Amino acid sequence: MKITNVVVRDIRFPTSAQQDGSDALNLGDYSATYVVLETGAGLEGHGLTFTNGRGNEIVVAAVHALKHHVVGRRLDDIVADMRAFFRDLTVDKQLRWLGPEKGILHMATGAILNAVWDLWAKREKKPMWKHLVDLAPEQLVSTIDFTYITDVLKPQEAIEMLHAAKAGAEAREAEMRRDGYPAYTTSTGWLGYPDEKVRRLCREAIAEGWTAFKMKVGQNLEDNVRRAAIMREEIGPTRKLMMDANQCWDVDESITQMKALARFDPWWIEEPTSPDDILGHARIARAVAPIGVATGEVCQNRVMFKQLLQADAIKFVQVDSCRMGGVNEAVAVILMANKFKKAVCPHAGGVGLCEYVQHLSIFDYIAVSGSLEDRLCEYVDHLHEHFVDPCVARNARYVTPLRPGYSIDIKPQSIAEYEFPTGRVWQKFVA
Amino acid sequence: MKITNVVVRDIRFPTSAQQDGSDALNLGDYSATYVVLETGAGLEGHGLTFTNGRGNEIVVAAVHALKHHVVGRRLDDIVADMRAFFRDLTVDKQLRWLGPEKGILHMATGAILNAVWDLWAKREKKPMWKHLVDLAPEQLVSTIDFTYITDVLKPQEAIEMLHAAKAGAEAREAEMRRDGYPAYTTSTGWLGYPDEKVRRLCREAIAEGWTAFKMKVGQNLEDNVRRAAIMREEIGPTRKLMMDANQCWDVDESITQMKALARFDPWWIEEPTSPDDILGHARIARAVAPIGVATGEVCQNRVMFKQLLQADAIKFVQVDSCRMGGVNEAVAVILMANKFKKAVCPHAGGVGLCEYVQHLSIFDYIAVSGSLEDRLCEYVDHLHEHFVDPCVARNARYVTPLRPGYSIDIKPQSIAEYEFPTGRVWQKFVA
Repeated sequence: MKITNVVVRDIRFPTSAQQDGSDALNLGDYSATYVVLETGAGLEGHGLTFTNGRGNEIVVAAVHALKHHVVGRRLDDIVADMRAFFRDLTVDKQLRWLGPEKGILHMATGAILNAVWDLWAKREKKPMWKHLVDLAPEQLVSTIDFTYITDVLKPQEAIEMLHAAKAGAEAREAEMRRDGYPAYTTSTGWLGYPDEKVRRLCREAIAEGWTAFKMKVGQNLEDNVRRAAIMREEIGPTRKLMMDANQCWDVDESITQMKALARFDPWWIEEPTSPDDILGHARIARAVAPIGVATGEVCQNRVMFKQLLQADAIKFVQVDSCRMGGVNEAVAVILMANKFKKAVCPHAGGVGLCEYVQHLSIFDYIAVSGSLEDRLCEYVDHLHEHFVDPCVARNARYVTPLRPGYSIDIKPQSIAEYEFPTGRVWQKFVA
Repeated sequence: MKITNVVVRDIRFPTSAQQDGSDALNLGDYSATYVVLETGAGLEGHGLTFTNGRGNEIVVAAVHALKHHVVGRRLDDIVADMRAFFRDLTVDKQLRWLGPEKGILHMATGAILNAVWDLWAKREKKPMWKHLVDLAPEQLVSTIDFTYITDVLKPQEAIEMLHAAKAGAEAREAEMRRDGYPAYTTSTGWLGYPDEKVRRLCREAIAEGWTAFKMKVGQNLEDNVRRAAIMREEIGPTRKLMMDANQCWDVDESITQMKALARFDPWWIEEPTSPDDILGHARIARAVAPIGVATGEVCQNRVMFKQLLQADAIKFVQVDSCRMGGVNEAVAVILMANKFKKAVCPHAGGVGLCEYVQHLSIFDYIAVSGSLEDRLCEYVDHLHEHFVDPCVARNARYVTPLRPGYSIDIKPQSIAEYEFPTGRVWQKFVA
């Protein structure tokens, strides 16, 4: 099976009009740089990276700049040495200067890598989580680029970790197939929602069975206190409340705010400050304990996650499915988190992220950590209707997906509607 | 004076054919995303960001995505609140997701910001260094975005630092105008050069008066030892030898290599490992002392530099002129370096970087650090002929530039020759 062509599309959903996804620093039109690997052999590999609207065309341009590494390659050759393939993309002697392994270039790399993984899982006729669970530890580890992380984790240790986790794996897989993976909801507390809407959404979410709720906090402490009081009042004293600052504070301000908000018993504070500030997160973590610090959705690569773990800066590892270089880099982070005994609680939302991360959490439970303690996978109820195999949340859990692949194929009619700027929805905006 | 249009061009020089600029991870065609701010008032602002060839078109696309923040703005309004202007570009509610403040998007931001600064200096009829020196400390500090660095440096402290450095500034300015700023050369030891070429270039450089020399090192220790022996033999025991690994080692490997190379008495080891690895650099610094650790050319923003300083991970701060968000972010780093008493030794080379950084070093000496101790500005003898006001190195020093602006205007005939892919040089390659 040879990859004969790489098609890349600019897909955008006009979500900003409803203030969905509004937080301290973002107000976007949820978008995707959407990659399709054509094979001419009856199967396609699909992958996307999530963006926030404007600028999606830059990521599309980055995929075009990388695709010469992909077109004409045989899938068997790629998966025989996925680490080398990853490095073809990330250590390109000219493009590397634009990263390395961060930002737009790495997000484009992620879209391509995830499409390759999707194609591989589809050929194996397995959902991605099962494909990962079934790979021999030696083979899975061979897909990971350990460059810059060997001071924390070497391939042999990773292999041993995966072998050790085989104990009880069958029972955990049966449990996942029966119960699904625990989730929390972010749909209630967006910053742009009026208070009454927050109350209503909390009540609806409780009725649906949710037990953990995330709210957005911003720069104004008074607003944060008012909104936290509403959330805590609605969800009661025992359900979990998480707070998400979306990077809007400096280090000292983070500590001041969280000391004032501690009385609402937050389980974690997410993205208190710059995603680049490892030492800052470590200082905040020491100052606000026992509130846990969470970050990761904008963590650019495995090198930054390595340091967040080394510095004991975070308690919750919010691995993102497409900001880094694909499944293999996400697995590297999951393995490092396990070594440091930190809980992987993936970042989701946007478009397609929930479809992706359910696979990573289920894999983590069955094949790496073997634990659900302190672990919840983010769920946001947006845009699932555009996917061929949408994720399903039931009783505050992700229902374990069973169809082959990485669950990321977008329906052809949605592509026709939302491709930017030629799709019907955008042409209506123009008119 | 209003900015009426933003023109952006893809300029590439086919340097890879000669192995110029070859190192452990890069072999590029030195390129520039070249921005011209048109005003219709007799002055233009020019700015560029350096890239390594392929992918320059992605940075061009990023400038297009940002230019709506610039077109139609009056220069007076921008410079009255440069911090707000910087945040218009870096905290765009949709584009920010693609960074924030890193990689392609931040390099594009830098090209635009530097063009604004160039326009401002030209209107003041001063070279950039002099424009910076003459700004009141309050006004210069007002251009800086202190977000995420207030735990290390607050605006008031920065103002006081600049006021304190006024003592002796006139004498230092006279010294710079007379003697220029000390430099070192990187032109001798590119990794792709054969040994005999390295010997010849060392002898030529010594004849030109150079006293500090940088060589590239790679993954093969035996090759590194052989090449270091040649360099040390040629330059003798007293001249400075710097080594540059261009990120090709992991943390433990860095320590092993430098312990073996210590007998050649390197003054610094540059970029031993991932530019993102603050904790790794700190460990290397402790292990290889008294050899100093240097990094910065790929340091993505002020938040990363802040941590490199906090962690005592580097002795030499290799600020880059266009990877970060323009002059104002570079000044933020120069001020933080001064607080931590570390030496700013800017990164240069590529195309246009030498023209840029001479201004930053001269400003640092006159108005911030007041010291030349341990400070050398990188010089590479490439592509200066394409600039209207090229930098000049004489007696191992940069000759202080005197023409208004940031010295970055490229000659119209060079643009016509090297614009990609339409320029005459590239059309010849195609033919």
